[in-house]
This record gives sequence, C-alpha cells and structure tokens, in this order.
Amino acid sequence: SAIESLFGASLTGIAYSLFAGQPLTILGSTGPVLVFEKILFKFCRDYGLSYLSLRASIGLWTAFLCIVLVATDASSLVCYITRFTEEAFAALICIIFIYEALEKLVHLGEVYPFNMHNDLNKLTSYSCVCSEPEKPSNETLRMWRTMNKSREDIAWNNLTVSECLEYHGVFRGSACGHHGPYIPDVLFWSVILFFATFFLSSFLKKFKTKRYFPTKVRSTISDFAVFLTIVIMVLIDYLIGVPSPKLHVPEKFEPTRKDRGWFIDPLGRNPWWTLLVAAVPALLCTILIFMDQQITAVIINRKEHKLKKGCGYHLDLLMVGIMLGICSIMGLPWFVAATVLSISHVNSLKVESECSAPGEQPKFLGIREQRVTGLMIFVLMGTSVSMTSVLKFIPMPVLYGVFLYMGVSSLKGIQFFDRIKLFGMPAKHQPDLIYLRYVPLWKVHIFTVVQLTCLVLLWVIKASAAAVVFPMMVLALVFVRKLMDLCFTKKELSWLDDLMPESKKKTEDDEKIKEKEEAERMFSDHDSVHLAYGEANIDFPVKTLKYSTDPSVVNISDEMAKTAQWKALAMSTENAKVTRANL
Amino acid sequence: SAIESLFGASLTGIAYSLFAGQPLTILGSTGPVLVFEKILFKFCRDYGLSYLSLRASIGLWTAFLCIVLVATDASSLVCYITRFTEEAFAALICIIFIYEALEKLVHLGEVYPFNMHNDLNKLTSYSCVCSEPEKPSNETLRMWRTMNKSREDIAWNNLTVSECLEYHGVFRGSACGHHGPYIPDVLFWSVILFFATFFLSSFLKKFKTKRYFPTKVRSTISDFAVFLTIVIMVLIDYLIGVPSPKLHVPEKFEPTRKDRGWFIDPLGRNPWWTLLVAAVPALLCTILIFMDQQITAVIINRKEHKLKKGCGYHLDLLMVGIMLGICSIMGLPWFVAATVLSISHVNSLKVESECSAPGEQPKFLGIREQRVTGLMIFVLMGTSVSMTSVLKFIPMPVLYGVFLYMGVSSLKGIQFFDRIKLFGMPAKHQPDLIYLRYVPLWKVHIFTVVQLTCLVLLWVIKASAAAVVFPMMVLALVFVRKLMDLCFTKKELSWLDDLMPESKKKTEDDEKIKEKEEAERMFSDHDSVHLAYGEANIDFPVKTLKYSTDPSVVNISDEMAKTAQWKALAMSTENAKVTRANL
Repeated sequence: SAIESLFGASLTGIAYSLFAGQPLTILGSTGPVLVFEKILFKFCRDYGLSYLSLRASIGLWTAFLCIVLVATDASSLVCYITRFTEEAFAALICIIFIYEALEKLVHLGEVYPFNMHNDLNKLTSYSCVCSEPEKPSNETLRMWRTMNKSREDIAWNNLTVSECLEYHGVFRGSACGHHGPYIPDVLFWSVILFFATFFLSSFLKKFKTKRYFPTKVRSTISDFAVFLTIVIMVLIDYLIGVPSPKLHVPEKFEPTRKDRGWFIDPLGRNPWWTLLVAAVPALLCTILIFMDQQITAVIINRKEHKLKKGCGYHLDLLMVGIMLGICSIMGLPWFVAATVLSISHVNSLKVESECSAPGEQPKFLGIREQRVTGLMIFVLMGTSVSMTSVLKFIPMPVLYGVFLYMGVSSLKGIQFFDRIKLFGMPAKHQPDLIYLRYVPLWKVHIFTVVQLTCLVLLWVIKASAAAVVFPMMVLALVFVRKLMDLCFTKKELSWLDDLMPESKKKTEDDEKIKEKEEAERMFSDHDSVHLAYGEANIDFPVKTLKYSTDPSVVNISDEMAKTAQWKALAMSTENAKVTRANL
Repeated sequence: SAIESLFGASLTGIAYSLFAGQPLTILGSTGPVLVFEKILFKFCRDYGLSYLSLRASIGLWTAFLCIVLVATDASSLVCYITRFTEEAFAALICIIFIYEALEKLVHLGEVYPFNMHNDLNKLTSYSCVCSEPEKPSNETLRMWRTMNKSREDIAWNNLTVSECLEYHGVFRGSACGHHGPYIPDVLFWSVILFFATFFLSSFLKKFKTKRYFPTKVRSTISDFAVFLTIVIMVLIDYLIGVPSPKLHVPEKFEPTRKDRGWFIDPLGRNPWWTLLVAAVPALLCTILIFMDQQITAVIINRKEHKLKKGCGYHLDLLMVGIMLGICSIMGLPWFVAATVLSISHVNSLKVESECSAPGEQPKFLGIREQRVTGLMIFVLMGTSVSMTSVLKFIPMPVLYGVFLYMGVSSLKGIQFFDRIKLFGMPAKHQPDLIYLRYVPLWKVHIFTVVQLTCLVLLWVIKASAAAVVFPMMVLALVFVRKLMDLCFTKKELSWLDDLMPESKKKTEDDEKIKEKEEAERMFSDHDSVHLAYGEANIDFPVKTLKYSTDPSVVNISDEMAKTAQWKALAMSTENAKVTRANL
C-alpha cells in the first residue's frame, strides 16, 4: 500500500495546504490513529468482519462527527489543553515512534533467524534442503490435488525456499531453523544499518553547532542530515551486497489488493447493522482525531512562535473531517496534523536575525508563514510514486533508524522528560530551571509522577485487551489535569504548566530579581542620605517594593515604570549630595 | 605466546617497579618497538635466518648500548626533547593504536568471508562440501603417502573444514568462498562488538561529568569504564552465541613453540658473523628504545604533575637495559615505558581538593607517588596466567574496540591535534588558545604542517621498504625541531612549543592583562589627582609599566610584587582625596 498511501497523502496534503487555516501543519498518519486502526483490524479478524468496509463506515461517521464538532464550536475547548496534556501526548507519540522502530528491528530477528550454535569447523556438513513431508495433512493433500501434482512429480530436493513453502514441504538439515533455513548475515547487517543510521543522522544534525567549516556549509549539512544519511546508507548497503530487507514498492499504480476497487463499499459483506453500530467506535475515533489535530495546532500556535496570521482551529477540523470522509471511501490512510513533522516544519521556517559579533545569540524574529513549502512537500510526495526504481534500493532498517532518530530527537525540549531526569540528579547538580526556583522539589516530583502514571496507563491500555478505550484515556488527560487544581496551588501550576518557554521566563525572573535588589539598594542609599542631611519629607511608595513572584499576576512593563520612578528619585538625592560636597 | 608474554610482562614490571627511579611508569611493548620487531621478522623470513636467535643477539647488543648510554650520561640529552618531538611521537603511538585496531577488523573480513551475492530464495541449494582435488600436486601426493592414505581411503564428503584443509581437499559448492566455506554472521557480529565496545567505553568514561547519580557512583563507573564494557560485551557475546573469534589462551605454562626452550641461543642456526653484525640494527633499536623510554619519562615528569620525588632518567634506562637483556635471552617481548598506559596510570593517581561549593573546580594537589599500584598491576598481570578459563570467553573484536578507544581517547589533549583542527575552522570560531593570542595564524599553520609532514614521513617510512631507518627518523624529529629555530622567533616557539599547560599559561596571561589595565587605570587616576591637587612630587617607576609579553623572560612573582607596590601607592592618594572631601 506504499504507493497508494503516498499518493493519498500527497492529495490530502495538497488539499489541506490550499484550503486550511493553518498552512504550517503537515498532515500524516500518526501513532495514536495507527494504534486505533490496528485495534480495529484485530477486532475485524477475530469476528470475521470486512476490515476495509467497517473502516469506511467508521470513517464516514467520524467525518460527520468532526463536522458536527465544527458546527458546535467545540474547538474552543482547546483552552483546556495545557502543557500537561500536550506534553503527555507528545511524549506518547515519541515513545510510539521509538517503540515501533525497535519492535520492527526485533521482528527482523524473527524473519531472519540465525544459527546460534554454529560450529565453524562443521560448515562443510551444513545444508538445509526441502523434502517431502512425512505425513502430509489433508489440507496439503487437497492442495496438491488442485495443483494437479502427485508427490512423485515434485523434485523436492531442487525446490527453492518459496517453492518449498508453496508445496508445504519440510526443511531438513543442520542449517534449518524453525520455519526455513537459517539466513546468514542479514540480521546483523540490519542491526548495523539501523544504529549507523541513527548515530550518523544525530551526528550530522548536530553539525550546525560545531566549530568547523563556514556557517553555510554547516547549516546545509545539518538541514539535510536525514537525507544525507539515507543516501550514504543506501550506497554502503548497495556496496556490501547483503540482501537486507528493502522498501517494498509496487511497480504499477493500482489499488493494493485485487479484491478491492478504487472505492470501498461501507457495507460490503458486513451485516447491515454494522453501519449504525460503527457510530460507537467512530465516537472514540473522533476524540482521538480531535485531540491529535488540536494538540498539534496548539503547539504550532504557541505564542513563542510569533505567528502573524491567525489560527484556524475550526477550518482545520472541517478540512480534516472532509478529507477523512474521502480517504475512508477510497481506502486511504486517515490523516491528521502530525505532531513531529509539523514541529520540524515550523522549526525549519524560523527566521533569525543575522548576527556578526562572535558569541552573540541570533534573535528569533518569526516564522516564514506561507503555503509554498507545504504544497511542495506534498507535490514531491506525489511524484515519489514515479521514483519506485530508486526507492526500492532503500533498506528497511535504514528507515527504522530514521524513525528512531525522529522519536529520540523529539524527546528533547519536552519539559516532562527534563523533570523525569530530575529523579536521578542530586540537588546540587540540578539545572537552574525556573520552576525549581519557585516550586518545592517534592511537589515537582509529584507532578511528574502523575504525568508518568498517565503515560504508563495509556501505554498499558494500548497494549491490553481494553485497547478500545484508548481514545477516552487521551481525553481523560485533560480531566486529570483539572483534578490537579486540588493538590497544587494556582501559583505552582502556573510555573509547572505554563506555555511560556523556559528561557523567556527565566530572563524575566532574573530581571525582576535584579530590579528588586536595585530597588532595595537605592532604598538603603536613600536612608543614609536621610541620616546625613536629616530631610524626611520625601514620600516614597513602599508598596511597590513588594514584588509579586506570581507570573500570572505580574506585569513587567508596570514594574519597569515603577523602577524608573525610583531611579529618578534616587538620582535627585544623589545630585543633592554631590552639590553639597562641592560647596 | 599470550601467557608467556603476560608472565614476562609481570616479571619485568615487578622488577622495574621495585628498583627503578620513577615508579609511576608502566612497562609494556609499545607501537614503535613492535614495528621494529615486525620489520626484523620480515627480514629474517626473507633471508632464511632464525628470528628468535637474531633477536636475542640484537637485544643483547641493545642492552649493552643502553648501559653505555647510562655510563656516558646520555640521558641529559632529553633537554632537547620539546613538546614538538613529544607530541609527534605521542601522536604516532596513538595513530598506530587506531590503525592496528582498524587493520585487525579489516583482517577479520578476510578470515571470515561472507557471501556478497546471497539469494535468500536459493538458500536450500546452498552448500559447501569438501571434495577430492582433481589434479593433486606432487606435494599433495607426497603428503598423502606420509599419512599412509590413498585418495580412496578418505571420505571426502564427510570431512570437516580443518580436515579438508589438512588433506589438501578442494571446497566445492555455491556457499564456498576462495579458501573455504562462507562464514555466516561472524564478520558482522564482530563489527557490532567492535563499535559497541568503542562507543560504550567512551560513554561510560564520560559518565564522570554527567549530572545524574551521586559523585561516587559516577566516578566509580567512569574509573571502571573499560572493565565494565568488557564484562558487558562478553556477556552479550555469550548470550548471542555467534562463534566470534575469541582470545586464544594456551592452557599450559610452557614456551610458545616446541622447537625452542626457555632460553634462546643468540647464535642458533645463524652464521657466526650475525653476532657481530647485529650491532648495527641494535644501534637503531637503541635509538628507538631510548626515545620511547625517555619521551614517556619526560611526559611523566612534566612540571604540571607536581611530582615531589625526583626523576630517574639514568636509573630507569639502566633497568630497561638489564631487563632487555633478560627478555632477549628468554625470548620474551621487549618492554619499555608505554606512553599511553603510563599517562593513564599517572592520571588515575591524581589527588584533587575536595570542594563543596557547586560550580567550583577541584584543585589539583599532586600525584600519589608510591610503588604499590605499579607492583599490583604486574602481580595481577602475572596471576592472569591462571585465569585462562575466564579469558577465553573474551571476543577479539572487543579487545580491538578497547584499542581503538585507547588510541582515540589519547588523542585528546595533544596540542598538535588541536592545531590540525584549526585548519577547518573559520577564524571567528577558533577557541581562545594562548598561542593564537601571540603567534600569527599562518605561522601556527606552518608549525603544524611541518609537524604533520614529519608524522606522515614517519608513517610512510614505517610502511615502505626503507622501514629499517624508522628509528633514525624518530631521532630526526629532534633535529627538525632545532632547524625550526631558523624560521621562528624565540618568542613564537616559546608559545607553540612550551611544556606549560595551556590553562595555566592562559590564567597567567589573563592576570597580566588585568594587571596592566589596572596599572594604567591607576596611572590615569593618579594623573587626575595630580590635576586636582597640584602635587607632583611622587616618584613612580615608569619602567614597571612596560609588561613583557614573552613568557621566557617574565617572572610572575616579581610582577605581582610591583603591582602590590602600585596598589599601595594608589591607595594612599585615594585616602588623601577622601580626607580632603570630608574636611
């Protein structure tokens, strides 16, 4: 389904980037939605239902429910999505990325078994040939009959692996595993490719901050880190020649299965009532898609990104709903705004001030808000359909390595993980994080533990039999956060669960402390002036000295004005002193 | 020869650490000496001489020459060994380490060939069996005759790999390489072990500076990084079960070959005149051993190590000479002070002040100078002879990985490599190195290029047919350095080629700049006082303001005293001002 889904992705993406409100988000099928589809697939297999048809009817219901959500102004509920929910969800997506990458590598170990008890001296006696099954089952006999072959017709010893499997032969020999011959080299070579991809792309990405080469070269290498890594790895794999599993790309543009057409019948061979009952899973699916879409939108529309054009929560959800309907009918994957991809898209569009002084940090000016990059991404995605001759050289372990890299690199910058790290850190080594300045450590730990418990619960539910309620649990994150209002004070939550970035908060806090100290210093200066000259008739507003430490109350510009006032006051008395001294 | 050489190493080491002048150096066979032995071995093979006998006679001559060097006070020549020679030599040793590790990995690729054109579907038809040679050579026929076997006696198809090679059979089949069957998995598993060892030990070593866990846990992990890595890797290798090449340890304590006894006859089957001619290569060998031993001793006795006990260049060389004679007669490896091992031994014995304030750098207090650690190292080395049952589980690629790690980690801190890195660095990103403050960049580059050329020349000579003059070239490094006196001024060389550590120099330089500025500021203050009060009868020594920037001339304590004088002067005038204002 690679080609079809790529084509579907590009079509959906093009439509989205043309018509949607927030052109910076990138559509894709994300972890939680895939988890939902997997659960659905298992369910259909267990109960003998047609997966694609049930999926189509659920998709149509979901599309309808999304449009209802748009009509009822439900997107305004995003104000309840705070950093707590956002980070738990983002962490979940990252962990799904990492877990899937590793799981696929482990899966390769099953597909490509190796001999754990090789005796290199006996290699001459090792072989694994196909042979006739001793007691063929009835099914096997029937199969032979339909093929018009008797067991004598088949030259068992000359069969290839796939032929042997086809004729239900048995593998015999010292080089045989459970389901066929041991496969040499492939597994270990895949492991090498996987980790080499991960480390190489991490290394190239970090190249931006290295000291070597001019800035342009470094940033080019850094920007194309993943692409360069894939090219290098494909070349090495080609030169080594080990038959590692490659990206499977069909050569013709056609529906993935022969028993399905371009369009899917929402009923198919399922009983009629599935059309109605589909509304229940559709409700769960809607929650999931709503959360996935809106959390990504909230992250993109963060204040720190300084977006000039407005957000489009309603329009975006409408577009996602319509596209969902089309994708369901055509049997294409469901697409929502993909968190990881969207964030890296926004990051790549950042404009920074050009600075010449060495050591000066470039200043973030804003995002290049446009629709061109989004459109081009999906057009290129679409044209990749015609590049199958190139794509089939890409080894799968390289792609898994890229997934691992994306998952791990997205973990950076999630405050939740910084807080988890605090558990293993002695107090004196803790970094100067703003929330550690104002919230006691044990309360920070409780906050982290609650968040971690939520995440573990989500993961357990995803893996257990109760997987169907997974979307409900994602929604439950919001309620858990609301419950925490009871255990934490408003101030503490504002430090732990505020969307303002750490660095900005810290600068403001540092400034405030400085101002306070300055004010106190001036205050004492002023006192000494009093003692020296005995003039006590200056009114000074003592109240302004009581600086609030609560970021939800404080107003920086007001505070600044007050300080300026103070400075003027102090200055005048200083002048008086100097004048007197000069007399 | 593993056991015997380990035993020899421990005996030699114990003797050295008991009787030598500098008990901090660790004896071992080093890169350059091994290079010399390899050249000698090739020479003996080409001219049909007995290697061990020739080696014994060369060793005895070398021992004699070393003792002559001691008698003639030749160790005083170490004053010509400057940072230039030292670093070129240390770099050579590191590169030999890295190169040998990689070369051994590449060599594994030859020993364990893999099938580059595997077709996974045809695995059932792959096999590689032993078969009768079609046209047996005369030698083969003779061999069969001595074994009392006719070609019909041998069950060719049932032979194992080693038997097949013994009977000069031919490997036939689609799973055969050039010299035997393709060996599955071993090569790629070795590559994984190799790089995993390298990265894991680097990671664990860096653990000391991480923020997690209490200091003790971190430093323990860091101190035992290599040991932990080896244990982990051995366990993983044991669990995976791939027959990777293991450390070969003989089970009995005996001479390595049956045709040699415990003692080697310096003449053996060689012609009598080899005893005399051996003096010529012995001269080269002496140069090498002298350079190797003394450069290591110079590094250990650097001022920055703050050693309290004196150095023992002469006594050390005498010990090395005597030991060389004994080792030659017993056919043991030649040992000199091993640079890499000795430096890490000294580093591990550093005493640092315990500091409690966070952020404060611990202060280096000195080295725990004693003979216990050295003795224990060699006693443990000796007892490892009885641990063969454990040692044989260690895969060779893990050891190669450790070599790579040691080579790479020793590269750090060699100024020569810092200067090479400068080539790829735009000027604005260059670190604040002391020599960049005072020497023009192009001159620094010329210095680096000369050093690099020397190193490349050494390497080329080592690999070429002229390898015998390799020790001469090591000595030539000293003369090249002397020649550079012509192109560089004394000042520039003192910055580029001084043994004072970078950080200390920089602190001193910063202090000097600060003092200068302060002095200038006071000077102008003083001037203004003059203007205000019109008193010009204070003598001040203008000459002290001319701060010298030449480290070979400046005397810091003198400068400090001058500044203190200045301060007192400035203070008194300041006081005068205040008193006047209070009037």
